Amino acid sequence: MLFSKEEYKERLKKVQKSMQEKGIELLISSDTANMNYLTGYDAWSFYYAQCVIVHVNSDEPLCFVRAQDAGGAYITTYLKKENVIVYHEKYIHTWPLHPYDYLVEIIKERKWDKLNVGLEMDSHYFTAYCYEKIKQGLPNAKLKDSERLVNWTRVVKSGTEIKLMKCAASISEKGMKTAMNAINPGVRQCDAVAEIQKTLFMGTPEFGGEYSSIATLLPTGKGTSASHLTASQEKFVTGEATIIEISGVYKRYHVPMARTVLLGKPEQKKIDAMKATNEALDAGIEATKPGNTTNDVAQKFWAVLDKHNIKKESRTGYSIGIGYPPDWGEHTLNISKGDETILQPNVCFHMIAVMQFGDWGVEASESVRVTKNGSELFCNYSRDLHIK
Amino acid sequence: MLFSKEEYKERLKKVQKSMQEKGIELLISSDTANMNYLTGYDAWSFYYAQCVIVHVNSDEPLCFVRAQDAGGAYITTYLKKENVIVYHEKYIHTWPLHPYDYLVEIIKERKWDKLNVGLEMDSHYFTAYCYEKIKQGLPNAKLKDSERLVNWTRVVKSGTEIKLMKCAASISEKGMKTAMNAINPGVRQCDAVAEIQKTLFMGTPEFGGEYSSIATLLPTGKGTSASHLTASQEKFVTGEATIIEISGVYKRYHVPMARTVLLGKPEQKKIDAMKATNEALDAGIEATKPGNTTNDVAQKFWAVLDKHNIKKESRTGYSIGIGYPPDWGEHTLNISKGDETILQPNVCFHMIAVMQFGDWGVEASESVRVTKNGSELFCNYSRDLHIK
Repeated sequence: MLFSKEEYKERLKKVQKSMQEKGIELLISSDTANMNYLTGYDAWSFYYAQCVIVHVNSDEPLCFVRAQDAGGAYITTYLKKENVIVYHEKYIHTWPLHPYDYLVEIIKERKWDKLNVGLEMDSHYFTAYCYEKIKQGLPNAKLKDSERLVNWTRVVKSGTEIKLMKCAASISEKGMKTAMNAINPGVRQCDAVAEIQKTLFMGTPEFGGEYSSIATLLPTGKGTSASHLTASQEKFVTGEATIIEISGVYKRYHVPMARTVLLGKPEQKKIDAMKATNEALDAGIEATKPGNTTNDVAQKFWAVLDKHNIKKESRTGYSIGIGYPPDWGEHTLNISKGDETILQPNVCFHMIAVMQFGDWGVEASESVRVTKNGSELFCNYSRDLHIK
Repeated sequence: MLFSKEEYKERLKKVQKSMQEKGIELLISSDTANMNYLTGYDAWSFYYAQCVIVHVNSDEPLCFVRAQDAGGAYITTYLKKENVIVYHEKYIHTWPLHPYDYLVEIIKERKWDKLNVGLEMDSHYFTAYCYEKIKQGLPNAKLKDSERLVNWTRVVKSGTEIKLMKCAASISEKGMKTAMNAINPGVRQCDAVAEIQKTLFMGTPEFGGEYSSIATLLPTGKGTSASHLTASQEKFVTGEATIIEISGVYKRYHVPMARTVLLGKPEQKKIDAMKATNEALDAGIEATKPGNTTNDVAQKFWAVLDKHNIKKESRTGYSIGIGYPPDWGEHTLNISKGDETILQPNVCFHMIAVMQFGDWGVEASESVRVTKNGSELFCNYSRDLHIK
C-alpha cells in the first residue's frame, strides 16, 4: 500500500466533514484522481463509467468498477473486498443499457435513494448520460453539485505526498534535459518525443516513471502560438522556437515543467519576452506564502507584465497533485486575478506562463510548494530561453 | 491538410444525412475523435469544454475552442477562420462560469435556439455540467441523444484512412517486438515501457508515431487477472506472465495489438488457455466478411470457447480508427453475441480476447479490416504465448 490505512482514513474523514458542511449525505465521485485519492484505485479503466461512493457515515468508500477491472481494484485499493462493487460486462457500450443502471440499483438496495446526493457535475467522465441515469433512477434523491469538494480536500498535501512529488520532480528535470539535448534542426519531432518519453519512464534508479496525464506538448514554429499542440513527424527548423511541456510522474503524482528552446540565431523579441515572463514568474513566486492569496500571487505576476506592456488573458497557474488523463490540474485554485484562495503550507501549484503573441509564443513554468514561511520550487532547471 | 477538402465535405454530408434521418437540426459533438473527423482539429485541449457544431444545412461545421487554442484550430482544421469560434479565457475553471455559457450565446445569436438539438450524451467530455448549461440556456430547443451518429459515420473507413491505419500497424509491430525483447526477469516494468514508448514514437523512417489514446497496458503476475493495469517500477519475475497491450498511432489512427509473454518455465494451463483463445480468435476472424454480422463473428468465437469449457462474459472486440484519450474504441459495434451490426468493406475492429481465470489471465488480439470478400489482419505478429 502506497499510503498507510490511517492516511486513507484521514482523507475520508476530511471529505465527510466537507460533505456535512455542504449538506451532502452521499457522494458519487467520478473524477479518476479523486477515486485514486479516496481508495488507491489505479488502472486505465476510466473510459467506462466507474466511481467511488462515499456515505457520510461510512468507514470505507465503495469502489464501483467494471467486472473486468475487479482484479485491479482488489490489487490497488485498500478496501475490504465487499466494498469493491462490480458491475456486469453486459453494461459495456450497449446503450441504452449503462453501468449507472446498476449503480442506481445498488443505491436503492442500500436505501440511500432519498438522500442528498452530491455529484461531480463537471468531472470529465461524469457524462450527461450518467447524470440522466441517476436523475431518472433516483427520483427521490436530492441531487446537487459537490463543487469539487474532494478536489479541494486534495489541495493541501501530506508529507508522504510531498515526498512522492519530489520524486516526480527529479524525473521532470531529467526529461527536460533530454528534451533540450534531443531538439535539433533536422530531427523529427516524434524522435525527440521518443527520447523524452524514454527518459520520463525510466525515471531514476530509485523512482521509476509512469505515464503522464497529458502527452508531451511540443508546439514548434508557428505552433508556439498554440500551447496544446503535440508532436508530429515534421522536423525542427533552424530559427524556430519550440515549447516543451512535460511532467515527471511518480505514483500518479505530477510535477510539470515548461521551457522554451530556440534553434539557431537568437531573436531579440523572443529573448525579451522570455525575460519579462521570467521576471513575472519570479514576482509571483516571491509573493507565495501562507496567508497570501492566489490573487496576491497573480497581482504581482501581472504587475510585471503591465510594466512590460504585455497582455495575457489566461490564468497563470493551477493546483497540482494526482493526475489522470486528460489533465494534471486539480480543478481548484487558479493563479489569476480575483481568485481569493488563501495559501497554506503544502499547497502545490504549477505556475505556468503561456505567452502568446499572434503567431509566436514563449512559455516557462515552475511547480511551486507553499512552505511554512514562503515557498520552494520542486525543480531546479533554468527558465532562460535555451538558445542552441 | 491530411485529407482532401472533398473528404471532409463528404464526411459532413454523411453526418448531415444521418442528422436528417434522426430529426436533428443542430448537432453538438463533444467527442474528441468526432471533432477531429469533422474538422481535422488536433490538440491536447480536450480537458476543457470544446465541441464541433454542425447545422444540418451548413457548408462547414463550427469548431468551438478556448482562446488559447485558437492558434491550434487555425493550424490543424480545414475550416475558414470565421468558423473557428473562440471562447474567452475567463471561462476556464471558474465555475459557475463555464465555456458552454458562451456556446449558448452563440447558438442564440444564430437563432438556432429553437431547433432539434442532438447531443452526444455519453461522450467522455460531455459532462453533466455542459448538459445543464445547454438545458437551462436553450429552454426552447428540443434536446435529444444523437446516439453516436458521428461515431457510426466513422465506422466505414475511406481508402486514405486505411492507408493511415496500415502505417499505424507497422508501428504496432515494432512496438510489440521491442516489448518482447525488453521484458525479462529483473527488469523494471517502467524500463520496459521506456523502450516500448521510444519505439512507438520513433515509428518508422517514413511514418513517425504519436501518443496513444491508451497508455501501454502491462499487467503482470497476479495483475494479468486485471487487464487495465499499467506499469509500475516493480521488476518482472521468472515464472510470471505479462500481458502487453499497445497501439501504434499515425495521424491519430490506432491499430492496437495485445500479446502475452511468459518468463521462464512453461506453464501448461497458460499455454492451453492461449491456444484455445487463438483458436477462438481464428474462428471469429474466419467469419468476418461483408454481409455477416458482428454477432456471427461472436458466435463463432464463443463456440470455440464453449468447446474448451471456457467462460468469458466481456465483449471480444470493438470498432477502431481515430482515437484520443481515454479510449481508442469508436463506441459503435461490439463483437459480442446479440450485436447485429452488418459488416461492410473497410469496417475495422480490434478483436481482443481478454481471458481471465481468477488470479491469472492471458490475452491476444488482432486488428481486423473487413475486405470485399472477407477480411485481412493489419498486423503480422504471432499470437502464441511467447515463452522466454
